[in-house]
Amino acid sequence: MKHLLQLSTLTKEEIMNILQDAIRLEQGEGLDSAKGKIVANLFFEPSTRTQYSFQVAEEKLGCKVISFNAAASSLQKGESFYDTVKTFESFGIDAVVIRSRQDEYYKDLVGKIQIPILNAGDGVKDHPTQSLLDLMTIYQEFGKFEGLKIAIVGDIKYSRVAHTNIEVMERLGMKCYISGPEEYRDEQYEYVNFDQAIEEMDIIMLLRVQHERHEQEMSISKEEYHKLYGLTMERVHRMKEHAIIMHPAPFNRNVEIADDVVECDKSRIFKQIHNGVYVRMAVIRRAFGG
Amino acid sequence: MKHLLQLSTLTKEEIMNILQDAIRLEQGEGLDSAKGKIVANLFFEPSTRTQYSFQVAEEKLGCKVISFNAAASSLQKGESFYDTVKTFESFGIDAVVIRSRQDEYYKDLVGKIQIPILNAGDGVKDHPTQSLLDLMTIYQEFGKFEGLKIAIVGDIKYSRVAHTNIEVMERLGMKCYISGPEEYRDEQYEYVNFDQAIEEMDIIMLLRVQHERHEQEMSISKEEYHKLYGLTMERVHRMKEHAIIMHPAPFNRNVEIADDVVECDKSRIFKQIHNGVYVRMAVIRRAFGG
Amino acid sequence: MKHLLQLSTLTKEEIMNILQDAIRLEQGEGLDSAKGKIVANLFFEPSTRTQYSFQVAEEKLGCKVISFNAAASSLQKGESFYDTVKTFESFGIDAVVIRSRQDEYYKDLVGKIQIPILNAGDGVKDHPTQSLLDLMTIYQEFGKFEGLKIAIVGDIKYSRVAHTNIEVMERLGMKCYISGPEEYRDEQYEYVNFDQAIEEMDIIMLLRVQHERHEQEMSISKEEYHKLYGLTMERVHRMKEHAIIMHPAPFNRNVEIADDVVECDKSRIFKQIHNGVYVRMAVIRRAFGG
Repeated sequence: MKHLLQLSTLTKEEIMNILQDAIRLEQGEGLDSAKGKIVANLFFEPSTRTQYSFQVAEEKLGCKVISFNAAASSLQKGESFYDTVKTFESFGIDAVVIRSRQDEYYKDLVGKIQIPILNAGDGVKDHPTQSLLDLMTIYQEFGKFEGLKIAIVGDIKYSRVAHTNIEVMERLGMKCYISGPEEYRDEQYEYVNFDQAIEEMDIIMLLRVQHERHEQEMSISKEEYHKLYGLTMERVHRMKEHAIIMHPAPFNRNVEIADDVVECDKSRIFKQIHNGVYVRMAVIRRAFGG
Repeated sequence: MKHLLQLSTLTKEEIMNILQDAIRLEQGEGLDSAKGKIVANLFFEPSTRTQYSFQVAEEKLGCKVISFNAAASSLQKGESFYDTVKTFESFGIDAVVIRSRQDEYYKDLVGKIQIPILNAGDGVKDHPTQSLLDLMTIYQEFGKFEGLKIAIVGDIKYSRVAHTNIEVMERLGMKCYISGPEEYRDEQYEYVNFDQAIEEMDIIMLLRVQHERHEQEMSISKEEYHKLYGLTMERVHRMKEHAIIMHPAPFNRNVEIADDVVECDKSRIFKQIHNGVYVRMAVIRRAFGG
Repeated sequence: MKHLLQLSTLTKEEIMNILQDAIRLEQGEGLDSAKGKIVANLFFEPSTRTQYSFQVAEEKLGCKVISFNAAASSLQKGESFYDTVKTFESFGIDAVVIRSRQDEYYKDLVGKIQIPILNAGDGVKDHPTQSLLDLMTIYQEFGKFEGLKIAIVGDIKYSRVAHTNIEVMERLGMKCYISGPEEYRDEQYEYVNFDQAIEEMDIIMLLRVQHERHEQEMSISKEEYHKLYGLTMERVHRMKEHAIIMHPAPFNRNVEIADDVVECDKSRIFKQIHNGVYVRMAVIRRAFGG
């Protein structure tokens, strides 16, 4: 039984094993290889995209899927997080996928829950399958990690994606930079000017501008953001020949990314979503020792 | 790959093929004939009856079902309709069933989405599987369409069912009339007095009185409506011997239809609901070229 | 075709057959023994725990599961309870599990609905699978019912569990007592002092303190309740050697049960939840004549 809790505790070899299994699964191997296993997706915080991606992954593996959304439910009424998870374990299911607002929620569970736990995002800490799908996309594109240069552009401070990705990418030999508005910057990372990043990086990874969070505190409008840090076709034309564009959707068309860039040749945005299903299949198989 | 978008673009032969396949499926042929296919039901507008009918159809074909309700979801947060559908396609599913408030929503998708699209209702325009289940019910009853006389009774103006049905039924050789309150009338169709319709029609198709829409503008009360245009047992007794009653549920008991008429000998209301599952199975099989 | 409506109409022999089948199912027999059957869970009142337990049971039997929650749905809009259930029957499903706020809702359905109905709770009247899982837990523990002494502690007056359990347990030869605050007492049952119950009973069954219902009318605080009637480890140590603790979750930690008692040696709380899945599998198999 293997949990998937934090990416930072996986060795390089474990990560490569997951990626290689995901690639085999994408090529059509291993369908129905977890046939009959019951997997419950327990979402204590809504995240439709992640939840449906896991659900499709489970269906492709032949699992039986139980979908639980805490917000829409009475199960949690006066009941602790631990008791809810323990209840699902008691139903006799084979694994749980959990998403929660609480950082490191799994610390309350490990050692007490006897089935594999797959982390679908904990607070602002980690979102291991999101990072794995980014890594799969990069690995399929370049066949390696060593020496690749990536700039992550946008709201670094509040981005779970940025922190988790930078840790694992550096460990795999990539060189990571951040870019975008000064107010979003995190001083621990190396900053690069956006237009310089465009010309020098192998990967431009855009982050979503979270208007709902920043509306009041942001000093620039959507239009200005697009002008200064939005990936336009004009900028795409200045990128290196083999460079690619990534974004952990959902994206704001014509804010951080121009409408016509979303599905341009260099964009791997929908490929990332596609890969999400296969890395999730791989970590589920891994959980069952497959 | 065959979409199902509008009934008006299907030839008579295509329609008859769908109906005949639906009848074979009802007789127990073809269960599990789309085994393992993943179908996503994307409902951007609630329509529980249609959604569950599709879901049962998919389950009977052996499909794996993904149910997405936009209202209850965060997927759409700041995301376009197109991007949401593209996301589901990227997950690697095999077909989408879509319901939307937007007329001809599929014009944004065709040519860009590479999997079959099955229209489960678009705005006030079309609802092809509803018309197909009506046609299946009539065909099973009379063994033909040519020469049959139908009166559609009630709120013609705002009824998607009425417009779609009249177009296809006329094309199949039926003679269509409308009846009911003058304020609901649509001048392009031939009007017949309700009590005359009762005695002369092969099919009386009642529409739902939409109180929520008409409460204020309606000049007659529910009780008056029932008295003037409601199908009572007294009126049923004046219908032709082989004539039948139809209604695209949900119905209002004791408004457009009397309580004891709902399940009387001439009523095909629950047979229509039953047939809905089989025509949906047929269009899904058709989508997969089966 | 066998409905499961009320426990009081089942003979002792029928009850023992269900329990023995549940035990066989728990041992791994009969998985997928209702393969391909379509079961709809129609919840007109939310009860997440019961609904998920049924869903896991159905999945383990190989059924195809349709989940309908009336609150979140438009199906019921202007539609009667009967018409909604009849609609699902018309879809061609094989059985319905129904939960409703209305006492004896099934009286509107029996004789008109031609598929098995499994009662997942009707108003304040009955909740047969809850009682069956309690009986299974007791039977597995003691190998018999005859002569066992149980005290049910807490809000007897408003507890569906208490009334249904006492009727069937007395019939199976058990001796039932009630205990807890005087204001919750029901005069038709024999009362026993809580601390006396602790020392003399084979089973202490705690009920949930329903703060949401009693907040205003309760004369004692949570802390006082815990002190006077809460099962603490100190009290557990005074229980008979083979005595066990039961609770029809969800429980309030440190109100009716101390935190460290929930998973202590004598507690069968999560075993009850576990057994719930197997008794539900057994009644579904019974419905299909299996």
